[in-house]
Amino acid sequence: MSPLDQAIADRLKRTPDGLVPAIAQQHDTGEVLMLGWMDDEALARTLSTGRATYWSRSRQEYWSKGDTSGHVQHVREVRLDCDGDTLLVKVDQVGVACHTGERTCFDADLLQGTDG
Amino acid sequence: MSPLDQAIADRLKRTPDGLVPAIAQQHDTGEVLMLGWMDDEALARTLSTGRATYWSRSRQEYWSKGDTSGHVQHVREVRLDCDGDTLLVKVDQVGVACHTGERTCFDADLLQGTDG
Repeated sequence: MSPLDQAIADRLKRTPDGLVPAIAQQHDTGEVLMLGWMDDEALARTLSTGRATYWSRSRQEYWSKGDTSGHVQHVREVRLDCDGDTLLVKVDQVGVACHTGERTCFDADLLQGTDG
Repeated sequence: MSPLDQAIADRLKRTPDGLVPAIAQQHDTGEVLMLGWMDDEALARTLSTGRATYWSRSRQEYWSKGDTSGHVQHVREVRLDCDGDTLLVKVDQVGVACHTGERTCFDADLLQGTDG
């Protein structure tokens, strides 16, 4: 696996454990699907393979979304925010994004407001 | 200021410094505007005032979006993800979300892919 492009690596501002939050958004509908975490290696894999790949903080391992579920995220676009500390990954989500079976990880728990 | 509802506080999974990432999304267009951080107090203020309020990690203080710029975020909906560790805040953004003058904090820096 090729390392992360140095020009990109130089712009990233990481948490103390070397991670950057990555927002996965469905490219056409605009749905926010989930938030994952990437280190330099996960971002390099995401850019080079075209499949969204994250670092699991709970399992302490890389996971390419869909490896076990088949619910792959095909990457259409990757953006870095103005502070260099958040990624926006526009994807084409196969099936559902959430391990609970919901389309997005935000579908189930409305704290305030109304749908629509 | 009333404290955060205990039922909500019990569901939050926070970083070691007590924070949860909060994705701000324009409620009608679906644009992802920015990512901020909330602790319990910032979330309580967001819910009770109807204005998105964050904790600034760099300045170590609360900021209600738009206090200085006028670019207020009126809260339409707040959601918690399946793991309880990320918030999705659907807002009506007045003016621009980014301090650089761009509409969103992700407009300027495309790492891979094409607009559209």
